[in-house]
Amino acid sequence: MPTISEKGKRMPESPIRKLVPFAELAKKNGIKVYHLNIGQPDIETPQIAMDAVKNYKEVVIAYSHSAGIPLFREKLTRYYADHGIDITSDQVIVGAGASEAILFAMNSCLDPGDEVIIPEPFYANYNGFAINAGIEVRPIVSDIRSGFALPPIAEFEKAITSRTKAILICNPNNPTGYLYSEEELEVLRGIVKKHDLFLISDEVYREFCYDGRKHHSAMNLEGIEENVILIDSVSKRYSACGIRIGFMISRNKQVMATALKFAQARLSPPTFGQVAAEAALDVPETYFTNVLDEYHARRKIVVESINAMEGAYCPEPKGAFYVVASLPIDDSDRFCRWLLEAFHHQNETVMLAPATGFYSTKGRGQNEVRISYVLNVEDLKKAMHCLDEALKIYPGRI
Amino acid sequence: MPTISEKGKRMPESPIRKLVPFAELAKKNGIKVYHLNIGQPDIETPQIAMDAVKNYKEVVIAYSHSAGIPLFREKLTRYYADHGIDITSDQVIVGAGASEAILFAMNSCLDPGDEVIIPEPFYANYNGFAINAGIEVRPIVSDIRSGFALPPIAEFEKAITSRTKAILICNPNNPTGYLYSEEELEVLRGIVKKHDLFLISDEVYREFCYDGRKHHSAMNLEGIEENVILIDSVSKRYSACGIRIGFMISRNKQVMATALKFAQARLSPPTFGQVAAEAALDVPETYFTNVLDEYHARRKIVVESINAMEGAYCPEPKGAFYVVASLPIDDSDRFCRWLLEAFHHQNETVMLAPATGFYSTKGRGQNEVRISYVLNVEDLKKAMHCLDEALKIYPGRI
Repeated sequence: MPTISEKGKRMPESPIRKLVPFAELAKKNGIKVYHLNIGQPDIETPQIAMDAVKNYKEVVIAYSHSAGIPLFREKLTRYYADHGIDITSDQVIVGAGASEAILFAMNSCLDPGDEVIIPEPFYANYNGFAINAGIEVRPIVSDIRSGFALPPIAEFEKAITSRTKAILICNPNNPTGYLYSEEELEVLRGIVKKHDLFLISDEVYREFCYDGRKHHSAMNLEGIEENVILIDSVSKRYSACGIRIGFMISRNKQVMATALKFAQARLSPPTFGQVAAEAALDVPETYFTNVLDEYHARRKIVVESINAMEGAYCPEPKGAFYVVASLPIDDSDRFCRWLLEAFHHQNETVMLAPATGFYSTKGRGQNEVRISYVLNVEDLKKAMHCLDEALKIYPGRI
Repeated sequence: MPTISEKGKRMPESPIRKLVPFAELAKKNGIKVYHLNIGQPDIETPQIAMDAVKNYKEVVIAYSHSAGIPLFREKLTRYYADHGIDITSDQVIVGAGASEAILFAMNSCLDPGDEVIIPEPFYANYNGFAINAGIEVRPIVSDIRSGFALPPIAEFEKAITSRTKAILICNPNNPTGYLYSEEELEVLRGIVKKHDLFLISDEVYREFCYDGRKHHSAMNLEGIEENVILIDSVSKRYSACGIRIGFMISRNKQVMATALKFAQARLSPPTFGQVAAEAALDVPETYFTNVLDEYHARRKIVVESINAMEGAYCPEPKGAFYVVASLPIDDSDRFCRWLLEAFHHQNETVMLAPATGFYSTKGRGQNEVRISYVLNVEDLKKAMHCLDEALKIYPGRI
């Protein structure tokens, strides 16, 4: 029997998905599981997007342009203009989710052995994408005690080698909810310019900023216009994760011409998803106001609940819909599995993502979990109550 | 300005897509272009698939299972059972088209530097996928004069090195339309078993076999059950290229567990596409009979027309909907571009794919083109007439 690849062996299991079989078993045993492990919002997809798909008139569902339907990309530029980002439609390639867009970016900019610096904890699947593309992740640590702020410039300088080709940030951040300030982005701009690096900026949570904070896009950093690659997605914005529509955006012509070759090899992004996403661009601003109010209320419950639990702590994030919390536990992988396998409170339990998977440095995140506040307020309260009860009796409590 | 990756520089342009700007220009100038360059059928997508999407009831378009919706995969196993292929639903991973499925297979089985043997001419994008995965293609030549039959076993033996990890075939073949016989598959079985290789078998044109020929799947080769990976897609079968639904199928548990990690990293395949594809599985057998009759008539026109042109030749393919034809031309890239840029016959012209892009050996395919017979009989006749007229006056005629 031939053996699988070394690359495949190194590929990590998804911290968001690996406990799914245990959750399924719990459900089979009659336990209600609150899913706070995954960024799958319960918000309804806008009706306007659903209707566009239902009213789709073509009789052949054909390949679209490899970079995405031209009129869709054209309309998209107006969305970005409204958000202060000035681009043209040929600076956009539509991917099957931000996932594919990130792979396009990594493959177009980095070669096997090249290094990308990522402040950790970071979106776990960046690890998988890096292995997929054969590139190396060099993490620099952002710490829960400083609210997961951008590490000081000295940390970046220490991490840079002759193979460093890019810095990757996620802003607002998944998993920490951290929102980068203008000053922090200026620091990044300086490093990127000095070392002539690519800056890959994943801004899929752009709309999710709280307390009146403003989002600053890396696309508007002056003097590094050719260095920046924006990663975006409509999955979270319109609660439409399943349509698989994301974007790779850059003003660097060489990068876009190269990414287009990768896009052409796989022919086209999903047609129905593009139809839905194009229509969703017409949702009124009030849609986001309502959604934000809802997430704001959810954040309050999670942050207050966690910080009221003995030995637990989480900073109040300014964006996205995640928190990373430190808990009085020995091992977050063991704890999250135990929640599904051995615990229930009045026939209910909660599914969390162990934070270990969001770090690339071994040993980090062992007493941290990521919590997605993607459920309604009532369910979140019950889920937090479950967690509180669980911490009281978890055998590995420290 | 940072430079793009070496990988990106090596990435080939798609021979199917690279002439699109010239076709667009021709259209702007009022020329009607017959698109025989791409495998985009004009057959209507089954109404049952369209209706399933229109009747989709969920209010949140959520991520599906990373391997695809479980009930969809379950139903799919019955399709395969009906086609004599015995698999279970956990032996299937749904990809965003066969394209993604091939990347999953390559990444799961081969490491950078490992080699895959592919009889050429082959589906051009295999080159791109190989570069994407960092692996090396070792072509062995199948020749137009022998109707593109499988090269003799000695050719495989010559191509095998210590880095050879897999053989990749496409059956029925794109671009040649060649349908492998049972005897040829037995030859492959012997090589695969002897050298313990993976056999990646792309069978997306399974239904398109002519003259009463039967398709033999690599999944039914005895003694190499753990070696075979089936690549499949609903794009051509149901004329639904834009839904982006393909499959990676294997009985090798290690391979599937590894591929699932790559699938989990990108979260899920497109939801609407899965809904459409699941419904399409219910189309009656008569759908295929009608479609086959249509393609049979189209093949006849193309094959007879080409062979009636002076200095032109193509074998009669037994499957898929492509032919590779040799033409009396100096350079197929130049010729195909000239057709769009400098030629028209009564304000019409034809777009073909230069065969050079379907070979990995430099210099091969220079007097060959791939023709997709995906248009209706009347249009095909006109397109063939255009080609005939073009060959009479092409300045590079030899």
